[in-house]
Amino acid sequence: MTATPAGRGLFLSFEGIDGSGKSTQARLLAETLRASGHEVVLTREPGGSPGAEEIRRLVLQGDPDRWSAETELLLFTAARRDHMERTIRPALSAGKVVICDRFADSTRMYQGLSRGDLRGIVDCLHTLMIGLEPDLTLLIDMDPDTGLTRARGRQGDEERFEDFGPDLQKKMRAGFLALAQEYRARFRVIDGNRPVDAVAADVRMTALRMLA
Amino acid sequence: MTATPAGRGLFLSFEGIDGSGKSTQARLLAETLRASGHEVVLTREPGGSPGAEEIRRLVLQGDPDRWSAETELLLFTAARRDHMERTIRPALSAGKVVICDRFADSTRMYQGLSRGDLRGIVDCLHTLMIGLEPDLTLLIDMDPDTGLTRARGRQGDEERFEDFGPDLQKKMRAGFLALAQEYRARFRVIDGNRPVDAVAADVRMTALRMLA
Ligand SMILES: Nc1ncnc2c1ncn2[C@@H]1O[C@H](COP(=O)(O)OP(=O)(O)OP(=O)(O)O)[C@@H](O)[C@H]1O
Ligand SMILES: Nc1ncnc2c1ncn2[C@@H]1O[C@H](COP(=O)(O)OP(=O)(O)OP(=O)(O)O)[C@@H](O)[C@H]1O
Ligand SMILES: [Mg+2]
Ligand SMILES: [Mg+2]
Repeated sequence: MTATPAGRGLFLSFEGIDGSGKSTQARLLAETLRASGHEVVLTREPGGSPGAEEIRRLVLQGDPDRWSAETELLLFTAARRDHMERTIRPALSAGKVVICDRFADSTRMYQGLSRGDLRGIVDCLHTLMIGLEPDLTLLIDMDPDTGLTRARGRQGDEERFEDFGPDLQKKMRAGFLALAQEYRARFRVIDGNRPVDAVAADVRMTALRMLA
Repeated sequence: MTATPAGRGLFLSFEGIDGSGKSTQARLLAETLRASGHEVVLTREPGGSPGAEEIRRLVLQGDPDRWSAETELLLFTAARRDHMERTIRPALSAGKVVICDRFADSTRMYQGLSRGDLRGIVDCLHTLMIGLEPDLTLLIDMDPDTGLTRARGRQGDEERFEDFGPDLQKKMRAGFLALAQEYRARFRVIDGNRPVDAVAADVRMTALRMLA
C-alpha cells in the first residue's frame, strides 16, 4: 500500500499545549494505521534519533537558566536536523507514514513566543537548516486548565517546559490557533475537550482522508 | 589600564592549521599581557564555557560520521553562542583582553570548506546567531607538512579533526590565507615557520599595537 500517490510517504505531526493529548493520539493513530496495513514510524521531538535524544538530554537536564533562549534554539535545531536526516527522511523515502509527536510548530510556539520573542530567528533557522514541513498537522485544541490538570497527573522528571502556569498555557493555546491560521493548508484543528475515543475518531478520519 | 579607548575590552583570536602553534602562542601572549598589567581571559573553541565544553564533548566523541556536517555546524554554533554569552561578552564588558584559541574563522574553514561546501550556511548562521568578530585575528601561517609533524607529536584523544592528511592541510592553509584577504581589516598573518620565541615576538608586537 503506498502512502501517497507519489510513494513519497506521508508526514503527520501532532501539536498542542501541554497535556492536550498529543502522545495519546499519536500512539492510537499509529496503531490504527498499522492495523490497516501501513508502515508507520512513530517518533517525537525533541529527540527521535539517537543523536537527537542525546541533545535532548543535554537541553532538558540541569538548571532552567542553564542555556539562553538562543542557545537552546540552536540545540533544538541541531536535534531536529539529526532527527530529520536519520529518522524522518529515510522513512518518507521508503514510502512510510511518519507520525511525529511535536515538530517545528512547537519551536515556533515555545522558543518563538514564550522564551523571548525569537519567532523571526526561529523562522530563519528553520528555512536555513530544516526546510521540511509536515503534510498534515493535527492541532489538539483544548481548554488550558484541563490541559494543566492532565499534564500534572502524568509522570516525568523533565519538568522544565511544564511549569509555565495557566497564563502561559492560555497564551500558548491562542498561539497555536494563530499558527493554524498562518499555515492553514496543512493544519487541522481537533477539539480535544472530549473523551479519548471521540478525539481519536476525528483524528483517524482526518488522517485517512490524506491517505485515500 | 584600559584595553581600548572606549574601555570595551579587546577581542583577539588565533587561527591557523593544525599544529601551527596557536595554543602555544595564545598562552605566551596571555602571560606577556598579564605581566604588563592587563586583565586577560584566555579561552578556546570549541568550548570556553561550561555549557560549550559539554557540547564540545558531544560533538567530538564517538564515530566520525555520527553527526552530519550540518548538525555539527549547529552544535558548534550553539557552543559558540554559549561561549560568547557566558565568557567573551562579560569579559569584554569588564574591559578585559580576551584571547581566543580559534573562533568563527575556524568554522568558516573546517565546516565551510572541508566538510561539504557549507560556507554560505556558515555565514548566514554566524550573522543570525553570533554577529561578533574579533578586533584582531592572528593567523599563524606555516608549511602544512611541518604542522602535521608537530600536531602528531602532541598528546590527545580527540583526533577527529586531525586525520585529514597533507592535501587537506594544504587546502586549509590556502583557505586561511584567503580568509585573511577577505577580512583584511582585522587579520594579521604571522610567519609560523620559526622558533617559538621569534613567532612570539611578532605576535607580541602586533597585539601591543592594538593596545597602545
Ligand atoms: N481526551 C482525554 N480525556 C481525558 N484524559 C486524557 C485525554 N487525552 C489524554 N488524556 C490524559 O491526559 C494526560 C496527558 O495526555 P498526553 O500525555 O497524551 O498529552 P500530551 O499532549 O502528549 O502532553 P505533553 O505535552 O505534556 O507531552 C495523560 O495522562 C492522558 O492519559
Ligand atoms: N614555532 C614552533 N617551533 C617548533 N615547535 C612548535 C612551535 N610552535 C609550537 N610548537 C610545538 O608544536 C606542537 C603544536 O603546537 P600547538 O599545540 O601550539 O599548535 P596548535 O596550532 O594549537 O595545534 P592544534 O590546531 O592541533 O590545536 C606542540 O608540540 C608545540 O610545542
Ligand atoms: Mg506528550
Ligand atoms: Mg591548539
